[in-house]
Amino acid sequence: MSGDAKLDDLRASIDNIDAALVAILAERFKITQRVGEYKAAQGLPAADPEREVVQIARLRRLAKEANLDPEFTEKFLQFIITEVIRLHEQIGDGA
Amino acid sequence: MSGDAKLDDLRASIDNIDAALVAILAERFKITQRVGEYKAAQGLPAADPEREVVQIARLRRLAKEANLDPEFTEKFLQFIITEVIRLHEQIGDGA
Repeated sequence: MSGDAKLDDLRASIDNIDAALVAILAERFKITQRVGEYKAAQGLPAADPEREVVQIARLRRLAKEANLDPEFTEKFLQFIITEVIRLHEQIGDGA
Repeated sequence: MSGDAKLDDLRASIDNIDAALVAILAERFKITQRVGEYKAAQGLPAADPEREVVQIARLRRLAKEANLDPEFTEKFLQFIITEVIRLHEQIGDGA
Protein backbone atom coordinates (compact mmCIF):
# COMPACT_ATOMS: atom_id res chain seq x y z
CA MET A 1 0.00 0.00 0.00
CA SER A 2 1.30 3.43 -0.94
CA GLY A 3 -0.63 5.32 1.75
CA ASP A 4 -2.33 7.25 -1.08
CA ALA A 5 -5.97 6.12 -1.39
CA LYS A 6 -6.36 7.13 -5.04
CA LEU A 7 -3.12 5.44 -6.10
CA ASP A 8 -4.00 2.31 -4.11
CA ASP A 9 -7.43 2.14 -5.77
CA LEU A 10 -5.96 2.37 -9.29
CA ARG A 11 -3.32 -0.21 -8.39
CA ALA A 12 -6.00 -2.59 -7.09
CA SER A 13 -7.59 -2.45 -10.57
CA ILE A 14 -4.21 -3.13 -12.20
CA ASP A 15 -3.72 -6.12 -9.89
CA ASN A 16 -7.16 -7.48 -10.85
CA ILE A 17 -6.31 -7.10 -14.53
CA ASP A 18 -2.93 -8.79 -14.07
CA ALA A 19 -4.62 -11.79 -12.45
CA ALA A 20 -6.94 -11.96 -15.48
CA LEU A 21 -3.95 -11.70 -17.85
CA VAL A 22 -2.20 -14.60 -16.08
CA ALA A 23 -5.36 -16.73 -16.28
CA ILE A 24 -5.93 -16.04 -19.97
CA LEU A 25 -2.25 -16.54 -20.80
CA ALA A 26 -2.38 -19.90 -19.01
CA GLU A 27 -5.34 -20.89 -21.19
CA ARG A 28 -3.51 -19.68 -24.33
CA PHE A 29 -0.48 -21.84 -23.50
CA LYS A 30 -2.75 -24.83 -22.84
CA ILE A 31 -4.07 -24.48 -26.40
CA THR A 32 -0.69 -23.81 -27.99
CA GLN A 33 0.62 -26.89 -26.17
CA ARG A 34 -2.11 -28.91 -27.91
CA VAL A 35 -1.09 -27.30 -31.21
CA GLY A 36 2.54 -28.19 -30.50
CA GLU A 37 1.72 -31.80 -29.68
CA TYR A 38 -0.43 -32.08 -32.80
CA LYS A 39 2.27 -30.54 -34.99
CA ALA A 40 4.91 -32.86 -33.52
CA ALA A 41 2.64 -35.89 -34.12
CA GLN A 42 2.04 -34.80 -37.73
CA GLY A 43 5.68 -33.93 -38.33
CA LEU A 44 4.82 -30.27 -38.93
CA PRO A 45 7.43 -27.55 -38.12
CA ALA A 46 7.05 -25.68 -34.79
CA ALA A 47 7.12 -22.23 -36.42
CA ASP A 48 4.71 -21.08 -39.12
CA PRO A 49 5.85 -17.72 -40.55
CA GLU A 50 2.77 -17.32 -42.80
CA ARG A 51 0.41 -17.79 -39.86
CA GLU A 52 2.43 -15.27 -37.84
CA VAL A 53 2.11 -12.62 -40.57
CA VAL A 54 -1.69 -13.01 -40.54
CA GLN A 55 -1.82 -13.00 -36.71
CA ILE A 56 0.29 -9.84 -36.47
CA ALA A 57 -1.77 -7.97 -39.08
CA ARG A 58 -5.01 -8.91 -37.28
CA LEU A 59 -3.71 -7.94 -33.85
CA ARG A 60 -2.42 -4.60 -35.13
CA ARG A 61 -5.92 -3.91 -36.43
CA LEU A 62 -7.53 -4.96 -33.12
CA ALA A 63 -4.98 -2.84 -31.23
CA LYS A 64 -5.88 0.26 -33.23
CA GLU A 65 -9.58 -0.33 -32.53
CA ALA A 66 -8.79 -0.62 -28.80
CA ASN A 67 -6.61 2.51 -28.89
CA LEU A 68 -3.51 0.45 -28.07
CA ASP A 69 -0.13 1.14 -29.68
CA PRO A 70 0.13 -1.31 -32.65
CA GLU A 71 3.94 -1.38 -32.36
CA PHE A 72 3.73 -2.44 -28.72
CA THR A 73 1.04 -5.00 -29.53
CA GLU A 74 3.17 -6.53 -32.28
CA LYS A 75 6.17 -6.75 -29.92
CA PHE A 76 3.85 -8.28 -27.31
CA LEU A 77 2.67 -11.00 -29.70
CA GLN A 78 6.23 -11.69 -30.86
CA PHE A 79 7.21 -12.06 -27.20
CA ILE A 80 4.50 -14.68 -26.66
CA ILE A 81 5.15 -16.48 -29.97
CA THR A 82 8.86 -16.74 -29.12
CA GLU A 83 7.91 -18.52 -25.88
CA VAL A 84 5.41 -20.77 -27.72
CA ILE A 85 8.04 -21.81 -30.29
CA ARG A 86 10.54 -22.51 -27.49
CA LEU A 87 7.95 -24.78 -25.82
CA HIS A 88 7.03 -26.42 -29.17
CA GLU A 89 10.67 -27.20 -29.86
CA GLN A 90 10.83 -28.91 -26.46
CA ILE A 91 7.80 -31.04 -27.46
CA GLY A 92 9.46 -31.79 -30.81
CA ASP A 93 12.58 -32.85 -28.95
CA GLY A 94 10.49 -35.28 -26.91
CA ALA A 95 10.83 -33.11 -23.78
CA MET B 1 -6.60 -21.40 -42.97
CA SER B 2 -4.17 -24.31 -42.86
CA GLY B 3 -6.49 -26.81 -44.61
CA ASP B 4 -6.27 -28.95 -41.45
CA ALA B 5 -9.60 -28.79 -39.57
CA LYS B 6 -8.13 -29.66 -36.16
CA LEU B 7 -5.33 -27.10 -36.46
CA ASP B 8 -7.77 -24.44 -37.70
CA ASP B 9 -10.08 -25.11 -34.74
CA LEU B 10 -7.27 -24.72 -32.20
CA ARG B 11 -6.05 -21.59 -33.95
CA ALA B 12 -9.54 -20.06 -33.85
CA SER B 13 -9.42 -20.43 -30.06
CA ILE B 14 -5.99 -18.77 -29.95
CA ASP B 15 -7.33 -15.90 -32.07
CA ASN B 16 -10.27 -15.45 -29.66
CA ILE B 17 -7.87 -15.38 -26.72
CA ASP B 18 -5.59 -12.87 -28.46
CA ALA B 19 -8.54 -10.53 -29.04
CA ALA B 20 -9.32 -10.81 -25.30
CA LEU B 21 -5.66 -10.11 -24.45
CA VAL B 22 -5.66 -6.98 -26.61
CA ALA B 23 -8.88 -5.75 -24.97
CA ILE B 24 -7.64 -6.35 -21.44
CA LEU B 25 -4.23 -4.83 -22.19
CA ALA B 26 -5.99 -1.73 -23.56
CA GLU B 27 -7.90 -1.46 -20.29
CA ARG B 28 -4.68 -1.94 -18.30
CA PHE B 29 -2.96 0.89 -20.19
CA LYS B 30 -6.00 3.13 -19.64
CA ILE B 31 -5.56 2.65 -15.90
CA THR B 32 -1.78 3.00 -15.91
CA GLN B 33 -2.23 6.20 -17.91
CA ARG B 34 -4.40 7.52 -15.09
CA VAL B 35 -1.70 6.44 -12.63
CA GLY B 36 0.91 8.23 -14.76
CA GLU B 37 -1.10 11.43 -14.92
CA TYR B 38 -1.73 11.31 -11.19
CA LYS B 39 1.95 10.68 -10.43
CA ALA B 40 3.00 13.53 -12.73
CA ALA B 41 0.48 15.87 -11.06
CA GLN B 42 1.77 14.88 -7.60
CA GLY B 43 5.42 15.04 -8.64
CA LEU B 44 5.89 11.31 -7.95
CA PRO B 45 8.52 9.35 -9.93
CA ALA B 46 7.30 7.24 -12.90
CA ALA B 47 8.96 4.03 -11.66
CA ASP B 48 8.31 2.46 -8.26
CA PRO B 49 10.80 -0.38 -7.63
CA GLU B 50 9.18 -1.45 -4.33
CA ARG B 51 5.76 -1.80 -5.97
CA GLU B 52 7.33 -3.80 -8.81
CA VAL B 53 8.92 -6.28 -6.37
CA VAL B 54 5.50 -6.92 -4.77
CA GLN B 55 3.79 -7.19 -8.20
CA ILE B 56 6.34 -9.68 -9.48
CA ALA B 57 6.16 -11.87 -6.36
CA ARG B 58 2.35 -11.95 -6.57
CA LEU B 59 2.30 -12.73 -10.29
CA ARG B 60 4.84 -15.53 -9.88
CA ARG B 61 2.52 -17.06 -7.27
CA LEU B 62 -0.54 -16.67 -9.52
CA ALA B 63 1.45 -18.13 -12.43
CA LYS B 64 2.34 -21.24 -10.43
CA GLU B 65 -1.32 -21.71 -9.46
CA ALA B 66 -2.29 -21.42 -13.16
CA ASN B 67 0.47 -23.86 -14.20
CA LEU B 68 2.26 -21.09 -16.12
CA ASP B 69 6.06 -20.76 -16.13
CA PRO B 70 6.87 -18.17 -13.39
CA GLU B 71 10.03 -17.10 -15.25
CA PHE B 72 8.05 -16.35 -18.40
CA THR B 73 5.37 -14.55 -16.37
CA GLU B 74 7.97 -12.35 -14.69
CA LYS B 75 9.53 -11.47 -18.08
CA PHE B 76 6.01 -10.79 -19.38
CA LEU B 77 5.25 -8.34 -16.56
CA GLN B 78 8.65 -6.65 -16.97
CA PHE B 79 7.86 -6.26 -20.67
CA ILE B 80 4.58 -4.48 -19.85
CA ILE B 81 6.07 -2.38 -17.02
CA THR B 82 8.86 -1.19 -19.34
CA GLU B 83 6.19 0.07 -21.75
CA VAL B 84 4.22 1.69 -18.89
CA ILE B 85 7.32 3.52 -17.62
CA ARG B 86 8.11 4.69 -21.17
CA LEU B 87 4.56 6.09 -21.44
CA HIS B 88 4.74 7.63 -17.92
CA GLU B 89 7.99 9.38 -18.77
CA GLN B 90 6.24 10.85 -21.82
CA ILE B 91 3.48 12.16 -19.51
CA GLY B 92 6.12 13.49 -17.09
CA ASP B 93 7.81 15.22 -20.03
CA GLY B 94 4.49 16.87 -20.84
CA ALA B 95 4.01 14.73 -23.96
